[in-house]
Amino acid sequence: MRRLEFWFEFGSTYSYLSVMRIEDLAARHDVTVEWKPFLLGAVFKAQGWATSPFNIYEDKGRYMWRDVARRAAKYGLEFHRLPHEGPARFPQNGLYAARMALVALEQPWGEAFCKSVFIAQFADGEDIGTQEKIDELACRHGAGSADIGAARSQRIKDALRVQTEIAVTKGIFGAPSFVVGDELFWGDDRLEDAIAFAVELP
Amino acid sequence: MRRLEFWFEFGSTYSYLSVMRIEDLAARHDVTVEWKPFLLGAVFKAQGWATSPFNIYEDKGRYMWRDVARRAAKYGLEFHRLPHEGPARFPQNGLYAARMALVALEQPWGEAFCKSVFIAQFADGEDIGTQEKIDELACRHGAGSADIGAARSQRIKDALRVQTEIAVTKGIFGAPSFVVGDELFWGDDRLEDAIAFAVELP
Repeated sequence: MRRLEFWFEFGSTYSYLSVMRIEDLAARHDVTVEWKPFLLGAVFKAQGWATSPFNIYEDKGRYMWRDVARRAAKYGLEFHRLPHEGPARFPQNGLYAARMALVALEQPWGEAFCKSVFIAQFADGEDIGTQEKIDELACRHGAGSADIGAARSQRIKDALRVQTEIAVTKGIFGAPSFVVGDELFWGDDRLEDAIAFAVELP
Repeated sequence: MRRLEFWFEFGSTYSYLSVMRIEDLAARHDVTVEWKPFLLGAVFKAQGWATSPFNIYEDKGRYMWRDVARRAAKYGLEFHRLPHEGPARFPQNGLYAARMALVALEQPWGEAFCKSVFIAQFADGEDIGTQEKIDELACRHGAGSADIGAARSQRIKDALRVQTEIAVTKGIFGAPSFVVGDELFWGDDRLEDAIAFAVELP
């Protein structure tokens, strides 16, 4: 059936790598990708973490920035480290971006919108945590006032909460994650394995 | 210079994958590998964890066993999940194995000994936490009573403690880790990148 669920969080550095790679990889292997934004912060909170473990564990955090920079260079992607403090701090607040993404992904410009949010954040060092910035990016892709209204609606707030709850029931604990049938793959470095599994699944 | 430090922990599932793969990969790229056993438990304790995070975080643990099984199959390696309880529980106590490894790695049979400990544990499901088992494996590779005495000596106890302290100063927070010059790579899935980096380093 060649269907893959792509679970990502807007504040996640490794999600950026997959967001920029998945369309091309999936197309080459004739795999259909369902984009599933969710809130990793809610999953972290359930594990007792008030922020990203990359901020809590200093060595792990230092390593992550270096690792993502190396991987981005390998893939030919621009990537800049965000500071811990300031408006464009790490991790950024991806709440409204995720709500808008749910609206956008019902339309043809959804995936392009998601990519532009990640590019604004990790290539251009911009703050993607404000409604103004997200509305602006969405409008550039063709969003109208109805879409902006939808992104702020109770329906979409509830939809994002439910989507995050579904992520937890699937055993997802980090981002990006890929689900093929009952099989879970975690991390940008498992994207190729997930695609290969989708191709082989009867 | 093509020199790579290979930091591993005897209780670590992902270290098993690298232990079984590194000799062939390094030989093919003419990279010299320095084997560095250390105690990951001491590093975990410094982060406030009393056991492996794979035991603390249930979803992450469930995922790890599945992920290592998939990777082992991909590499053609036998792999069996260890129970949480019992003599051969996860994680096993690799303290004495690491001490013997320090003795063994001063001799030509060191790497073969290390591999046989991992195979006993993860392919054959045996308990590698006892001195008897480790002595038996070492003797099979040619260890004599002087080696067994050395593995129990204060010199080697101190050497393992110092080795673990060096791991921390290098920013190592998990196993396996690979160090090439000042560059740190974490995880069996970064072994190829680490080798490539060693090849390119002037």
